[in-house]
Formats: sequence, C-alpha cells, structure tokens
Amino acid sequence: MIPVEEARAQLFDLVAPLPAETVPLIEASGRVLARDLRANRAQPPFDASAMDGYAIRAEEAVRGAMFKVIGESAAGHGFSGPLGAGQAVRIFTGAPLPAGAGFVVIQEDTQQNGDVMTITADPGTSHNIRPAGSDFAAGATVSAPRRLTPADIALLASMNIADVPVTRRPRVAVLSTGDELVMPGEDPGPDQIIASNSFGLHAMLRELGAEPRLLPIARDTLQSLREAFETAEGADLVVTIGGASVGDHDLVGEAAARFGLERAFYKVAMRPGKPLMAGRMGAAAMVGLPGNPVSAMVCGHVFLAPMIRILLGLDRHVPDLRQAFLAEALSANGPREHYMRAVVRNGEVRAFDRQDSALLTVLSQANALLVRPPHDPPRRAGESIGYLPISRAEGD
Amino acid sequence: MIPVEEARAQLFDLVAPLPAETVPLIEASGRVLARDLRANRAQPPFDASAMDGYAIRAEEAVRGAMFKVIGESAAGHGFSGPLGAGQAVRIFTGAPLPAGAGFVVIQEDTQQNGDVMTITADPGTSHNIRPAGSDFAAGATVSAPRRLTPADIALLASMNIADVPVTRRPRVAVLSTGDELVMPGEDPGPDQIIASNSFGLHAMLRELGAEPRLLPIARDTLQSLREAFETAEGADLVVTIGGASVGDHDLVGEAAARFGLERAFYKVAMRPGKPLMAGRMGAAAMVGLPGNPVSAMVCGHVFLAPMIRILLGLDRHVPDLRQAFLAEALSANGPREHYMRAVVRNGEVRAFDRQDSALLTVLSQANALLVRPPHDPPRRAGESIGYLPISRAEGD
Repeated sequence: MIPVEEARAQLFDLVAPLPAETVPLIEASGRVLARDLRANRAQPPFDASAMDGYAIRAEEAVRGAMFKVIGESAAGHGFSGPLGAGQAVRIFTGAPLPAGAGFVVIQEDTQQNGDVMTITADPGTSHNIRPAGSDFAAGATVSAPRRLTPADIALLASMNIADVPVTRRPRVAVLSTGDELVMPGEDPGPDQIIASNSFGLHAMLRELGAEPRLLPIARDTLQSLREAFETAEGADLVVTIGGASVGDHDLVGEAAARFGLERAFYKVAMRPGKPLMAGRMGAAAMVGLPGNPVSAMVCGHVFLAPMIRILLGLDRHVPDLRQAFLAEALSANGPREHYMRAVVRNGEVRAFDRQDSALLTVLSQANALLVRPPHDPPRRAGESIGYLPISRAEGD
Repeated sequence: MIPVEEARAQLFDLVAPLPAETVPLIEASGRVLARDLRANRAQPPFDASAMDGYAIRAEEAVRGAMFKVIGESAAGHGFSGPLGAGQAVRIFTGAPLPAGAGFVVIQEDTQQNGDVMTITADPGTSHNIRPAGSDFAAGATVSAPRRLTPADIALLASMNIADVPVTRRPRVAVLSTGDELVMPGEDPGPDQIIASNSFGLHAMLRELGAEPRLLPIARDTLQSLREAFETAEGADLVVTIGGASVGDHDLVGEAAARFGLERAFYKVAMRPGKPLMAGRMGAAAMVGLPGNPVSAMVCGHVFLAPMIRILLGLDRHVPDLRQAFLAEALSANGPREHYMRAVVRNGEVRAFDRQDSALLTVLSQANALLVRPPHDPPRRAGESIGYLPISRAEGD
C-alpha cells in the first residue's frame, strides 16, 4: 500500500495543462485565464467626479464662496471649455472633470440661484475626484493562471477586453462497468442496481470546470470494455468506475492494458477507496476508481479534483485542509488515511456514526470529509482537526 | 435612509418561488429540487456482500472449518440455489447473498483447493453483509427544496429517478444605462467608459443559478429606456444599473414608472451602494442598482443573491456571516453599514486600505466583504468580526 500523497503525486504526473482557446467575455466566468492580459486603457480614463455637485478650482473651495455656473459635465458628455476663477461647472458622478478644476463640492453643500452657486457648508478636504488611472493604468496586468470570478469579469470589461484566452475544458469520459448496472429509468433485474457513481462524478466534474461525457455502461466482457474504450476517443482523461479491485471479475485492467494502457496499479492506504488503477492510454490519462458508490466519489474529491486543476493550467495543488473543532471524540485511526463523511457547522465538525462506504445517503448529508491521517491517535471533543469541504451548499 | 435589513425585507416581498420544470438527472446538479422525491426501490435491493470472499451459514464462521464450494455469486449474477450446512458460495463485493447465508468470510482469511474452501484465520465478528435497504428503503424521501449536489445526483440515480422536478431558472434581464457606456470591444469616445457592471452581474447571476440576459445599453433618453424595458419582456427580474441616484440625469426611475413600475425608492444606510430603486413592473420584479462599479456588485451579493434564492424556491434566507479574526485594527464606523472589500486567509480577515467604490481592481482581489454594522465601535486586531464570502475561489 502507498500513502495518499504518493498516489496523488503519481496521478499528477499523468496530466499537463491543456491548450488555450478564446471565448467571449460573457462566457469567461469560472474559466481559467490562460495567459496574462493587459488593460487596453486606464480606468478612469480621465479625472472623474466621484460625486454629484459642482467642479471648481481647488483653491476656491471655501464656505460662502460664490460662483458663476458656466456649464455642465455629465457622464458621457464632458464640459469642453476650461474652467476659470470664480466659475463652476455642474457635474455628475463619473463625469469628466473640466480642465482647470481641482475640487468637486458636493451638491448637499451648495445652493444654486439662477446661474449663481454658493457654497453653503464647509466643503471639507476631500476633493471628490477620481484621478485618471486610479483604478488601473493602461497596460495593467491580470495574471494567469486564474479562475475568473464575476468581479474579474467586470474588471476585464472595464479594461475593454472582449475576448478572453482560457484553458480548454478538460474532456473527461466517464465509464461505469459491471453486469449488475442499469441506467436510471431502466427496469433492473433482481440482481441488478442502478448506475449512480457515474452520474455523481459527472456532476462533480462539471462543477470543477471539466466537460464530462457519460459513456454507455460496459459489461463484464473484454469485447464490451474494448468498445467502451473506443468511444472514449478524444478524451483528455478516461475515468472508469468498478473493476479496479482484485476480484476474479475485474476485467477493466486487462481490457485497458490491451487498449494500450501503461498501467500502474496502486493499493492506496486510504478509506474508503483503496484500489486505484492509473496510467497513460494513448493521448489520454486513465484513472480506474473503485466501484463502491462512496469510494468513487471520495476518490473524485481527493484525486480527480486536483488532476482537473492541473489540466486547467492551475498549479499542482493539494487542497489545503480547513480546520474545525471536533464535536465528538474519535477513537484511534488504523494504518489507512480515513476520509470520514461529516458535517461542518459553525466551526464544529461532526463525523457520521455510519461510515460504511456503500451509504450514499450519508454522503448526501455530508458537507465535508474529515481527514484522519494514518495511525492518528484518539482525539477528544473540542480538538482542532482537518477537513476537506465537499459541497458549496451553505444553508441550502 | 433605511437599514439594510429593512431594504432586504422589502425586496424579498417582490419575489416568490417560480414554477417547476422537469430535467433529466444528468442536468439536475446545482438545480433546486422543487418537490419531495421518493426512492423507487431499496438500496441495496437485496442482502449484498460487502467484500470479496465466501458466503456461508453464520454459525459456521470459525477458524479451521471446511466447506464445499457449490457455486458463485457475482455482481449482476447471483447464485440461485439455497446454501446448506457445510457449503460455501464464492462471492464478490456487491453480489447478492445466497438464501441461507449469514456470513461472508473475506478472501484473505481463506484457502481454496479444488472445490474445498478452508477458513485459515479467525474470521472475526463482522458478517460483511450489507442488509437490503441499509442505505435507504423503497419510498425513502429526498426533501425539497434543496440545491442538488453531486452526491445528491448519485443518490437520486441509485433511487432509480431519471427525471427531476426542479425550479425553473429565474430569467433576469440586466440593463446598463448611460450615455457614457460602450460595450467591451467597442471604441469609446473621450468621455466614455466600458460597461463592466452588467458583465460582472451576468456572471454572478449565472453562478447563483439564474438565467441572465444582457440587454443592449440604454441611452439617457426616455425613448431608449422604454425600448430597453420592452426587450426585457418575459423576465422574472429586471435589474437596471445606473440612473438610480438623485442626479438630474437619472431618467431610469421616470422611464420605469411610465412602464408601470410601482416604485419604491430606498436610500439604504450602506456603503457602498446607497441608492436603490425597486418595485413590481408587470409580471416582473425590478431592482435598480447604483451605477458605481463596486456598488452594483456589492448590491448583487447583498440583495440579488438572496432574491434569486427565493425565486428558486429556497427559503427567505439572509446569508449568515462567517467569522474571522481581524488582521488589523479598524476605526469606528459611521451611520451606514459598511461592506469592506477584504481578504480572508487562514481564519484571518484583512480589509483593503483603499475602499473607494470605483475600484474594481480591489474588488477583484477580494474574496470577502467584511461587514461593519452602523456605528460599529473601533475594533482591535485579533477581534472576531463578520464577513460575507464573495468568491468560491480557494487558492485559485
């Protein structure tokens, strides 16, 4: 058995960043920026008013001063002339400051009668001007790689960037194997169950930014598996579920080997999820996950998620564990790293009593995997312990 | 000015859960379950082996015992006959237990010679059987409303649910207004800037589960605004950006009123984001956000996100603030609730020095809004303070 860290390092070596493609800005959120971008202009592009009020010369901003209002500067329609002593220009938030102006008196501190404006209150020391380039200068950089957030999209828009180079989405073929499986909506025989891991992994992969594709269920024959691998053509990553164990009925390894897999087989010192098959199969990376419902999903979080990050051009990154306080004591852990389904709430983490790897109901109720290192000693309630968040849901 | 809580309550009254639609299971992740679902079958549907090994009668599980191997039970292919005393059936993980069996001896504790199997080690007390229905019984419920996670999708699959009733995605029309705006990729005039908020909000709304649609930029004329409102037809929510302030150039309120808006106008005691317009406009809710880049995005997090939750059928839910320790002291807050762009890392929160609401660069670097209640006293470094997470990115 090899430690989780070692298995992860070997899996990481199977994948490399994918090439870039260009998408319109409106489709770029959540995608990973593939190369540095530079602002096509400064923001603001001119000295701009931060408030509604009157633009005047800086030295004239004193209570009681009176001005002749000579024009108006609105957003999109600046005042073209210069501004002299004793003159004011009515100005609105975001509008260009007239040449010569150095102060914006806010509306609330003024009174206008006809074309005469009087400062009626102490205008204070803030000039209420956003200098040109105070948000960013022309040429300012947004650095890759970076998963673009909604705020980034707004920033790129304001830099006048309409098309964005992003890493292509990883194409992941997901293959369930086993004579016992039927698809949801089908009528299972008495010895059959419904394929569920492939659907869960499909959803997880899509959330990670990949482009997953479910292949038809492969039967437990070399012929059926061979056909399945053929339909995986074009994938960057092939994920099989089931048949990665050592039982007599595990044909996936054999079929993959015949299909060109340079195979590595790991018994990983982890619970759930011990058996793992991996290698390169032509242009694709291949990972064989255990068929156990929860094992497959846990391996998805622990192994597939960081592999997708690498394919997306993000760094080789082992997800940092977060810390929470144990709600209940835990007995000593055995020799395998244990990923316990748990709920984190208000900084406290509580592992479920039932940790059998067949229980999807328990996984569905969990929002975290509490991580016990190998041979972790007994832990008391209130101790701090590491966990991996597995659900975005907050109060959903 | 009204407090943020009051503004939020009034906005919440403008929206109600949308009707349900049915989507295939493979498209259901991230959607909100619209009504309770019941399992079409139990899982496992039969007593199943939890290990690879041999099924025997429960009372015969003792070291040294010998058995005649009479057949095999594999996943998908059970052993049809009953199992008598002194008999064993080779069995694999997930396979149905033969009638009469009450124990699975794991492979590692056995030896087989021809058709004779001997238990070579203490088989222990765990019977290695997953009883029928131990994950869930037929008829077990998944309760609505619930935003479906990948684990939920796996669970629904195993319940043999192929089609899922989910709340329809809220259709949100996003309208930027102002003569100063051009679209990204266009060539701005000297007094113009690039529309950015609409792009940022579009990305945010999509992440929240809505179906946003960008309308063409409306110019500062009643005619242009009227045309824009016409193209918003069919939206559940119309979000305008800009023109919600009190300046002379704010025509949006007037145009919306002519278009049937039962208008409410709030000056909300918050920073950034003070002016807010809202009401019902025909079948749609309408919210007018301030045009300031950061104000619009902050209002998106504070107001639009929970409104989308309600439209999706989730509860009226004010996002719980999380707590972190202040990295640096903060001076007393004024009369308005202050949402400060900040970075949370390792349980510590640090507000940016520059909080001007025009700075998108600062928003893009933030992963949280540190929340200062009105009149919050000065805070010392190390004190615990509330924040709203605004980015899913973890180490991205």
